[in-house]
Amino acid sequence: MMPEAVLKKAAAEMLDYEGSGQSVMEMSHRSKTYQSIIDGCSALLREVMQIPDNYEILFLQGGASTQFAMIPLNLATKTGKVDYVLTGQWAKKAAAEAKLLLGEENVNIVASSADKTFSYIPELDKSKFNPTADYFYICMNNTIYGTKFPEIPDTGDVPLVADISSMALSQPLPVEKFGILYAGAQKNMGPAGLTVVIIRKDLISENVRPGTPTMLRFKTHADNGSMYNTPPCYSIYMCKLVLEWIKNEIGGLDKMYELNQQKAKLFYDYLDSSKMFKGTVEKGSRSLMNIPFVTGSDELDAKFVKESTAAGFVNLKGHRTVGGMRASIYNAMPIEGVEKLIAFMKEFEANN
Amino acid sequence: MMPEAVLKKAAAEMLDYEGSGQSVMEMSHRSKTYQSIIDGCSALLREVMQIPDNYEILFLQGGASTQFAMIPLNLATKTGKVDYVLTGQWAKKAAAEAKLLLGEENVNIVASSADKTFSYIPELDKSKFNPTADYFYICMNNTIYGTKFPEIPDTGDVPLVADISSMALSQPLPVEKFGILYAGAQKNMGPAGLTVVIIRKDLISENVRPGTPTMLRFKTHADNGSMYNTPPCYSIYMCKLVLEWIKNEIGGLDKMYELNQQKAKLFYDYLDSSKMFKGTVEKGSRSLMNIPFVTGSDELDAKFVKESTAAGFVNLKGHRTVGGMRASIYNAMPIEGVEKLIAFMKEFEANN
Repeated sequence: MMPEAVLKKAAAEMLDYEGSGQSVMEMSHRSKTYQSIIDGCSALLREVMQIPDNYEILFLQGGASTQFAMIPLNLATKTGKVDYVLTGQWAKKAAAEAKLLLGEENVNIVASSADKTFSYIPELDKSKFNPTADYFYICMNNTIYGTKFPEIPDTGDVPLVADISSMALSQPLPVEKFGILYAGAQKNMGPAGLTVVIIRKDLISENVRPGTPTMLRFKTHADNGSMYNTPPCYSIYMCKLVLEWIKNEIGGLDKMYELNQQKAKLFYDYLDSSKMFKGTVEKGSRSLMNIPFVTGSDELDAKFVKESTAAGFVNLKGHRTVGGMRASIYNAMPIEGVEKLIAFMKEFEANN
Repeated sequence: MMPEAVLKKAAAEMLDYEGSGQSVMEMSHRSKTYQSIIDGCSALLREVMQIPDNYEILFLQGGASTQFAMIPLNLATKTGKVDYVLTGQWAKKAAAEAKLLLGEENVNIVASSADKTFSYIPELDKSKFNPTADYFYICMNNTIYGTKFPEIPDTGDVPLVADISSMALSQPLPVEKFGILYAGAQKNMGPAGLTVVIIRKDLISENVRPGTPTMLRFKTHADNGSMYNTPPCYSIYMCKLVLEWIKNEIGGLDKMYELNQQKAKLFYDYLDSSKMFKGTVEKGSRSLMNIPFVTGSDELDAKFVKESTAAGFVNLKGHRTVGGMRASIYNAMPIEGVEKLIAFMKEFEANN
C-alpha cells in the first residue's frame, strides 16, 4: 500500500517533472535533474532514519534475495564463519544461501523458532555466538509469521546484519548498533525493484570472496554513488516522495511509530478479547506490521477470507506456507482501515 | 524517451488499475491481477518479437551489468572457454567480467574495433572463432559509438549471445539465430530497473559454475515464472503498455522498423550533405538508434551543445568517454523531433 498523496503526486508529475518537460522515467540518470532526485532521496533517508556519517546508503536492485548472496560474498572474508538466527522463511533462505556460498560447516545456527512454526523470537544464548564470526545475521521483522525481535541482539564486535524489509521506516532504529541494515523497498519505502542498503563504511572493502561478480560487490556501488550502472530511477523517485510524506505529512519516524503502535494495539486488543479469532504469535514477539490470526477452524478461516475479500479487504489470506489470515498494516494503512477491518471481524464473529 | 500515450495511460491508472481500486505499485505480485499483467507482458513480447516456443522470456533486475556475470556463470560450463567481439564500452565491460569470472586465458577476443575508437563493426575472421566455445558474445548496437552489426554472425553450434539493450524492439530480429538476447529495458522497452532475457530453453540448466548465487542462475527465474522473488512489478507493467503501443498504435515491429529507418535516413542524409557536421561511424556499421557526430572543432562542438540545450534539445552531448555530439532517436522519438533537430543544425551551420 502506498500513501494516496504520494500516488497523486506521482500521477501529476508523470509527464512533466517540476517543469523539466520530461517524465522521471525518461531522464538520463546522468542528468543534473536526476542527480538531485537520488541525492535528495539519500539525504532525506539519512535525516529521517538519523543515519550517522560513517554509514553509506546504497540504492540497489535484486531484492533481499540478492542481499542473501552479497552479504556472505562481501563480509565473510576473515574467518569465513558466520552466525544466523532462524526466525522464518526469509532468515532460512538467507542462511541457505550462506551455506551454498560458504559451505554448510561455516554457517552457525545460533537459534531457531522452527519448533513452533516460527511463532516467537527465540531467546539468544550468548554462549552459542561465535566471537570471531564475520557477521551475525537476523531478520528483524518476519512478514509471514508476524514476529519482530523485541530487542536488538548485542553482538559485540561482530557486525550485526539485519533484514528490515517489512519494517523499514515503521519506527526509529539505532543504526549505530548495526553493521548493515537492508530492505527491499516494496513494503514501506516505495515500489518493488529497489533495495536500500545502509552499510557501515568500514565493511565496504575490495577484499571480497574469490569469484564475486562486480555487480555483487558493495564497493562497486559505493564508489559510484549507486550509479555504477543505471539505477532503478523511478523507484528511487517514488521512495523520495514516500520520505517527503513521512517527514512533512506524518512528522517523522517517532510520529510514524506512534501511529503504527496505535494501529497494532487496536488490532491486538481485539484479537485478545475475541472468542473466535486468535493471534498466532507469542505476546513478546509481536510485529507492528504483520498480524497473523486464525479462528481455529480451517473451514471458518476459508469462509472469512472469502467474505472479507468480497467486502473489499485485500490480501487477508495468510501466506501459502502457513494458512489462516494475516493483516498487514504497513505505514500507508490509515487507522480507519484497521477500524473497518475490526468492525467487519466483529460482525463475522456475531454471525458465525 | 517514452511514448506520450503510454505516460498518459500510466498517469491515469496510477491510483486505480482497471477498477481494482489499487495502484499497480501496491498490488501483491502473487495476486491474480498482477499475474495477468506479467503474463500479458510476456505474451505480447512473444507476439511482437515472434519469439519461438523453445525460448523462455525472463523479467529480471540488475541491468546489463548483471548479465555480464550471469552469462559466463550459467553458460561457461563445458569447455569454460568463450568468444567475445569488442565493439565498444559495453562489450569491453562484458568481456572484462568474463575474464574476472573465468580467467583471462579463457576469454578469446575474436575481433575488436578499438583501433579506430570503435567507429566500425570489425569483419569477423571465422578462423578465429573457437568451435568449442561455450558461447559467442556480441553487443549488437553500441549506444555510445553509434554502431550496429550489419549482419548477425553465423556461429554454427556455438550459442550466440547478444546484448540488444539499445536496439530492442526497434526492428524485427530472427530470434532463432540467437542463444540469448537480452536488454536493459530503459531505452525502448520501459523504465530502468527491468532486464528482459530471451533464452533458448536448452541453455537453462542447473549445471552452473561453482559458487553461482541462486539469484544469478537463469534456472531460478525460469522455474518460477520470473517470480522467485518480487519482480520489478511497475516496470513490467510499463513495458506491457509500451508493447501495446507498438502493437496497436504503431502496427508492429515491421512498421516500427520502417519508421526508424525513415528517421535515421533523414538524419544521416543531412550529415552526409552538411559541410559542418560529420557522422563519426563508417557507413556500413551505422546504428538506427544512436548517431554520433562532430563538427571537427571541440570549440564549435561545445557551442553547439550549449545552444541546442538552450533551445530545448536534451541529451545531445556525446558520452563523456568520446565527446562530440550524439542524437539518440529511440522508438518514442517522433519524426518531427528529428526534423526539428535538423532544422536547428542547419541554422547553426548557417550562423557559424
